[in-house]
Amino acid sequence: MNTPVIAVHGGAWAIPENMIADTKLGIQDALRAGYQVLQSGGTALEAVQAAIIKMEDDPNFDAGNGSVLTYDGDVEMDSMIMDGSTMKAGSVGCVNSIANPIKLATLVMEKTDHVLLVGEGANKFAKEMGVPRVEIESLVSPHAKEEWERKTVGHDTVGAVAVDSMGNVASGTSTGGITAKRPGRVGDTPLVGCGGYADNEVGGVSTTGHGEGIIKVCLARHITFLMEQGLSAQEASEKALENMYNKVGSSGGVIVISKDGGVGQYFTTDKMARGWAKDGQIYWGVAMDDIQSCPIVLDR
Amino acid sequence: MNTPVIAVHGGAWAIPENMIADTKLGIQDALRAGYQVLQSGGTALEAVQAAIIKMEDDPNFDAGNGSVLTYDGDVEMDSMIMDGSTMKAGSVGCVNSIANPIKLATLVMEKTDHVLLVGEGANKFAKEMGVPRVEIESLVSPHAKEEWERKTVGHDTVGAVAVDSMGNVASGTSTGGITAKRPGRVGDTPLVGCGGYADNEVGGVSTTGHGEGIIKVCLARHITFLMEQGLSAQEASEKALENMYNKVGSSGGVIVISKDGGVGQYFTTDKMARGWAKDGQIYWGVAMDDIQSCPIVLDR
Repeated sequence: MNTPVIAVHGGAWAIPENMIADTKLGIQDALRAGYQVLQSGGTALEAVQAAIIKMEDDPNFDAGNGSVLTYDGDVEMDSMIMDGSTMKAGSVGCVNSIANPIKLATLVMEKTDHVLLVGEGANKFAKEMGVPRVEIESLVSPHAKEEWERKTVGHDTVGAVAVDSMGNVASGTSTGGITAKRPGRVGDTPLVGCGGYADNEVGGVSTTGHGEGIIKVCLARHITFLMEQGLSAQEASEKALENMYNKVGSSGGVIVISKDGGVGQYFTTDKMARGWAKDGQIYWGVAMDDIQSCPIVLDR
Repeated sequence: MNTPVIAVHGGAWAIPENMIADTKLGIQDALRAGYQVLQSGGTALEAVQAAIIKMEDDPNFDAGNGSVLTYDGDVEMDSMIMDGSTMKAGSVGCVNSIANPIKLATLVMEKTDHVLLVGEGANKFAKEMGVPRVEIESLVSPHAKEEWERKTVGHDTVGAVAVDSMGNVASGTSTGGITAKRPGRVGDTPLVGCGGYADNEVGGVSTTGHGEGIIKVCLARHITFLMEQGLSAQEASEKALENMYNKVGSSGGVIVISKDGGVGQYFTTDKMARGWAKDGQIYWGVAMDDIQSCPIVLDR
């Protein structure tokens, strides 16, 4: 029996002071939702879904409800999920009008022979699967609208990684992308090995930060390679992010769990919203040294 | 001064007897086009483009003219290019109505801050850049139509890797995808680290085969990672393809050039159309042991 562990992030960027309190609460809510699944005997995959759905539904994060807007003022969301027990993955790029892209990514994984569906084809697949359509306006938060009007750029992708009591590893990532992006732009989030990776024999990763830089170094897969070479989750996180900065000049952040439950978390941005839950204790923080912790109280 | 080298492939699959002669000619034409660029002092990037354009224009290959059809009978093409001297990459997914997706991928790399554009956004970008629109019918070969009618599946993605005399590495890959794919499906081809990779400090890779399997192991990046650990281009090709087969049950093929000009080529499919040109000699073949060679005669 493994000790169940879950880690989540809510984006690595210069999180403004007035968003920090809500961000920390959102991280804790997501961790509790995922940890509850693990404690009830659920799988790593189910825990990752539960945590990400919480953050997609929270307008404080750039994913699902809260997604930032494209240059044209539209919503185009990317998401992926990967099951380390089967190495199956599902992902969607540039989808709109659905509340939870992580659920659609899961349907791609479970119901098709493909990994990645994008654009109109992905929207058509959502319809085929009976995913309820929501008005785009309902996904747009005041904060996202403000960023779009000012064309300021925040990166607050969300992600989760979990290891369950059976030793299964899963990871997921979801985002609205970057403010004022070109329509049709797909970032690192839905790309296996870039936005996330999961392999029962190694561990799981979810990344955030400068998407194009993350793609150029295949950040998530780089971290699992380094772990295959014997590095710990923390050592691999630091080495891969430093390499990305030196190689392509891009900053980002990652959460990592090794197959034996070791947690890694690191970022080269100003701040990163992240946390983890393990052995009945929950940990969360935003600045590098600012990690708070308390016992987890779960719903009965 | 480095010795310029170029390698190309035209897909790893059970190439039928009646296509072998044309396939071999197509490989030689592409190699000559790319090698001519390198011999005239052109860059690795220009050589890769020239070789891929030749194969996109050749209806015997599943890329550009010759692309296979989606389930709905449409053409949706994927392509990527990567410049190992800058680590910049450009790629497009699910584009239609253009003759040479590799040119559009290059424009994404050169004219935007993004790496990957898909679907309608990518088609709109093509229009913005003044890329000529072609009728979809003009891209459909009799062979592709036949595959679609029978719903048989061939995988004949094309790709090229080159190292120029300055030691710059580039790689590119282009495809019409797989016959009867779901609209919106993006395979490994346009994904950095899956369909291709290039890094001046290591070498370049282009892959082909079962796209979803290639994505799950990040095949191209796996190969460069193994080369970073000291394996030769050939050793890394074999090890990564065997790993893919063992890990996710998928077959494929790769061409690889190390930064010092060493060529690697391997496949776990029935056949693979591939070849390379180096030191004034051209090599090509389709079955594992069937490699022919002769001196290159270039146009004056």
